[in-house]
Amino acid sequence: MVHDTWVGVDVGGTKVLAVRVSASGEVEASATRPMPGRTASEAAVEDAVVAAAHDVYADGPPTALGISAAGLVDSTGERYLFGAHLPWRDAPVRARIAERAGLAVVLDNDANCAAHAELAVGAARGIDSMVMITIGTGIGGALVLGGRVVRGAHGLAGEFGHMQVVPDGLACECGLSGCWEQYCSGRALERVTRVALGRHLDGPEVAAMASAGDEVARQAFASIGTWLGVGVAGLVSAFDPELVVVGGGVSAVGDLLLEPARAALLESLQGTAHRPVPSLVPARLGPEAGAVGAALLARDAGKL
Amino acid sequence: MVHDTWVGVDVGGTKVLAVRVSASGEVEASATRPMPGRTASEAAVEDAVVAAAHDVYADGPPTALGISAAGLVDSTGERYLFGAHLPWRDAPVRARIAERAGLAVVLDNDANCAAHAELAVGAARGIDSMVMITIGTGIGGALVLGGRVVRGAHGLAGEFGHMQVVPDGLACECGLSGCWEQYCSGRALERVTRVALGRHLDGPEVAAMASAGDEVARQAFASIGTWLGVGVAGLVSAFDPELVVVGGGVSAVGDLLLEPARAALLESLQGTAHRPVPSLVPARLGPEAGAVGAALLARDAGKL
Repeated sequence: MVHDTWVGVDVGGTKVLAVRVSASGEVEASATRPMPGRTASEAAVEDAVVAAAHDVYADGPPTALGISAAGLVDSTGERYLFGAHLPWRDAPVRARIAERAGLAVVLDNDANCAAHAELAVGAARGIDSMVMITIGTGIGGALVLGGRVVRGAHGLAGEFGHMQVVPDGLACECGLSGCWEQYCSGRALERVTRVALGRHLDGPEVAAMASAGDEVARQAFASIGTWLGVGVAGLVSAFDPELVVVGGGVSAVGDLLLEPARAALLESLQGTAHRPVPSLVPARLGPEAGAVGAALLARDAGKL
Repeated sequence: MVHDTWVGVDVGGTKVLAVRVSASGEVEASATRPMPGRTASEAAVEDAVVAAAHDVYADGPPTALGISAAGLVDSTGERYLFGAHLPWRDAPVRARIAERAGLAVVLDNDANCAAHAELAVGAARGIDSMVMITIGTGIGGALVLGGRVVRGAHGLAGEFGHMQVVPDGLACECGLSGCWEQYCSGRALERVTRVALGRHLDGPEVAAMASAGDEVARQAFASIGTWLGVGVAGLVSAFDPELVVVGGGVSAVGDLLLEPARAALLESLQGTAHRPVPSLVPARLGPEAGAVGAALLARDAGKL
């Protein structure tokens, strides 16, 4: 007899990552396809999502499919509203993909999915209040209070990446300037490295160099890690969480990112001699957290 | 027969404001004393609090006393931990004032008190999620979710004033630099005016000039109002509230502050063409919101 499975697909700025999970949340398979790009058609992205999901099907289709998407998803989980890195604009993405895939589908913001995964099977089990930051092409975020993801009045809570951290700062794809993700993200890592070396390296190349001890690459991670800590300090001032969890592809480098972030958090938070400072820890599910969370949301749909 | 009353005392950076409220939350009396200053003794501030409370006693003492204080109050409401503008440092303020006043006392952060007042009898009746900003000497803040003030894991949520908005920016009394309240507060208003005019005016003087049409004073409010909107945009990105309520003494000037803030909120928020933008409204209780909220917290203690 075929066991129940759920598939989660994370749609990010550069790639579409699919995972298949078991009822206990174990990842049984994963696959990656390129994201068609933010100037591609909406249908092209939907094709890529369905194709990536198919890549991880077991003998047959899963019980249900979860979609994790970078950007703004409405509070009903029906529509993708807006995002700097994806072409969808106020699009009924849940229903479209349900029709294409012939499956029950749930849709949520990538960081909300990641937070759900970390709460369910990751670094935040048993935690009541948490800030989750996912660092990929840009920054995603989620707030957890009372052990549940806070969705906000319109489903848009946790959009930390477009908080302004530098007045009249770097132009952002969202149309604003000085957004946090311009200083702390995969794109920021590439920019800092390009300025230092005079040539383009992509994020994984910079990570490999940094892990091998290259000083320029380490300094690039220190730069975005410091900005991570500065931004996290602001969120800690605002929300006072028990824990800060950092996930997303760029976080795979670990302490090369997180140590500068911890130092900057301490330096940028008011009254640290007089208040507890939350731990800043890596997401246990790593870069797959969004996809795993989407699959677990599909599993838990109706139960929540 | 003497009716039940509650007294609330708001302890800010420059003054101590006491109000007496009835069971329905109506303000029956108010009084102001100067704050002894942040270099005064802790006992001097406690004396001022008890004296201001006495100033509004009816025929006899009230049923209970609420204290609203700018800065960090612990999650139990027993201790004042730290604040840039008051001398208390990890001090058991609730018990000390209860002993001096011979009354039941509750203690909370000023913006939490203001938010409680606005929810109970003010601009946020019936609201589920709200960001409250109080602008006085500095910035206070509170988050409301599910119709209740979010206190955070350690009672410290809502400390928006010390979020960094300018890297390597103006030095703040808290020891950090570039804090939001250095750009949006009564102190900021005075600094901007001093730079423009070459002489010192206090906040109420600048407000009177602005209301009378003085262009320099109006520009000073436009400056701090714009910074208000920029910071609020970040908080809206993070929390997606239904409503933003602005109180505190500086907010008494009304639209001279709030119109530039609304414009900057729209300009600084991601994807406004694709998302609802919450209204930014004045606190209905005005500069007394903290004191009234403290009195209502004293009234509601045990009921919440």
